[in-house]
Amino acid sequence: MHTLPRLHWLLSLLLLAPLITQAAAPLPSWNEGPSRQAIVNFVEAVTESSGTHYVPVPERIAVFDNDGTLWSEQPLYFEVLFSLDEVRRLAPQHPEWKTEQPFKAVLEGDHKALAERGMDGLLKIVAATHAGVSTEQFSERTRHWLAGAKHPKTGKPYTEMVFQPMLELLDYLRAHGFKTYIVSGGEVAFMRAFAEEVYGIPPEQVIGTTLDARLVEADGTLSIIRQPKLLHNDDGPGKPVSIDSIIGRRPILAFGNSDGDLQMLQWTKAGPGLRFAGLVHHTDATREWAYDRQSKVGRLDKALTAAGSNGWTVVDMAREWQRIYPFDDSKEQ
Amino acid sequence: MHTLPRLHWLLSLLLLAPLITQAAAPLPSWNEGPSRQAIVNFVEAVTESSGTHYVPVPERIAVFDNDGTLWSEQPLYFEVLFSLDEVRRLAPQHPEWKTEQPFKAVLEGDHKALAERGMDGLLKIVAATHAGVSTEQFSERTRHWLAGAKHPKTGKPYTEMVFQPMLELLDYLRAHGFKTYIVSGGEVAFMRAFAEEVYGIPPEQVIGTTLDARLVEADGTLSIIRQPKLLHNDDGPGKPVSIDSIIGRRPILAFGNSDGDLQMLQWTKAGPGLRFAGLVHHTDATREWAYDRQSKVGRLDKALTAAGSNGWTVVDMAREWQRIYPFDDSKEQ
Repeated sequence: MHTLPRLHWLLSLLLLAPLITQAAAPLPSWNEGPSRQAIVNFVEAVTESSGTHYVPVPERIAVFDNDGTLWSEQPLYFEVLFSLDEVRRLAPQHPEWKTEQPFKAVLEGDHKALAERGMDGLLKIVAATHAGVSTEQFSERTRHWLAGAKHPKTGKPYTEMVFQPMLELLDYLRAHGFKTYIVSGGEVAFMRAFAEEVYGIPPEQVIGTTLDARLVEADGTLSIIRQPKLLHNDDGPGKPVSIDSIIGRRPILAFGNSDGDLQMLQWTKAGPGLRFAGLVHHTDATREWAYDRQSKVGRLDKALTAAGSNGWTVVDMAREWQRIYPFDDSKEQ
Repeated sequence: MHTLPRLHWLLSLLLLAPLITQAAAPLPSWNEGPSRQAIVNFVEAVTESSGTHYVPVPERIAVFDNDGTLWSEQPLYFEVLFSLDEVRRLAPQHPEWKTEQPFKAVLEGDHKALAERGMDGLLKIVAATHAGVSTEQFSERTRHWLAGAKHPKTGKPYTEMVFQPMLELLDYLRAHGFKTYIVSGGEVAFMRAFAEEVYGIPPEQVIGTTLDARLVEADGTLSIIRQPKLLHNDDGPGKPVSIDSIIGRRPILAFGNSDGDLQMLQWTKAGPGLRFAGLVHHTDATREWAYDRQSKVGRLDKALTAAGSNGWTVVDMAREWQRIYPFDDSKEQ
């Protein structure tokens, strides 16, 4: 019996260890500022079991846009850059592309002709590069591209151009019982090819734009073959709809960076109890990019106005993020 | 230092405690028989970390059909019984139903006229009772019905007509690091209204048939309104397609009971490594129902043949289940 007090002390220490580790440095790449404070206040409020804002663990759903929220999206969405590279890689198997738009424009590097084709041209490129193969084959293509491709400005692999402060936020939320989801306009299988390794988000917590698919048997093997037909466009109002359909619970925290996230943030905030809506505001032309209301990629206009009217958290990247990328050693400017 | 051996002993005991508790009685309502043995063999093989069949925790995905696999489905799918009750409840708001089929047949209890309308009639009933309201409103309707409705044969609430051996199997798998999913022809919001409480399966792990939905703003409130249009029929080949789209990983274990589960079982087994495919065979006319190749509800014909050819596990309910329902005290026959 004389060992009991010592045992008790040891066990207490074991139980406290994770809390001590955590308390040491939550969100280290976030400067002391309004956004960091708002995040910490929210998480403390919903996890304090005796508090009025307490939310049980199963209901702690957090949703994040991907492009511009978890990684960069300039000069073009990285998945578009992938698609253009894929057109070039697949061109030898498609001699007809030499004369057929929008493929001709891609192969000739004719940006003007490509831009003229607009969204219709882009959808043709997505269909040609994302469909006609099984999910496994497409994942393999994506991983192969990610392993070799370099960003035109930074020269870094795309998977390194993720935001260090957001990686810390994902970890911080998960350490407090949150289930973290991606809800993005990106195609779902494209994101799943790296989300688990890069963000710690497993495939089943990645929601995105989807293509139609069919179960096909060939030579005694069953495959799910991706069809050149858009099934769900996970942008704007499509985001709350897919969250409701796939998660079946309204999130208590949502983070985005553009007008495509507006409805997801509105719908998250419209639920009962304490809710958090955040926007990454790209204000750092030196370390990343600076753009908002006028940008063609990741336009942040209506959502920025809504954030102002509704008291949402707007993260000023230049002022509030000590580091942008994991490879970045720069300190507060 | 002299207390260390004791500490070590105590810590070992703490670490072992969950294993000891578990070993005491896995699957107590399953008789010692081929199915119980096959399940235990499989789970031990994929969780033995030094074994050749080891599967890491994140890849331990288990999928279960619902109707006829986790709960009964006779004399009709319980969701159809709900829909018929809803037509009667909503009839005062729809005077036109007195003369309009298939609603007239439901209101007059004219089973023959209803049967003549077939799947088309059923889809009209589903649209009328499942759409035009928000997801929250529909969940409320479902919960209200489940709280009061009684099964015509047993007189029990439908949520008590779940299979005790399958509840134990879900627990057993989760205790071994599996993530358990429902993948069912039932409408997803209907199942989510009870799956968490009854099966311990949270909404985000329920996959099913879906209706189209729209984000609608009315009086300053955002709602997701269910549309009278089938978006995905989660039956047959639709099951592997939705698993691939929503989970993004191929399951290592699948359990069904009818031809609607055939492709899900085939696709699960077609993955690399050790995989488990199981069928609940309804062989117990005394305690539940006995039906297979000729049944209109839950027909088990092609999948039963496939199970025979491929060595899938077929659970003989009458011989292998000591209890059927949680309220059932009957012992082995």
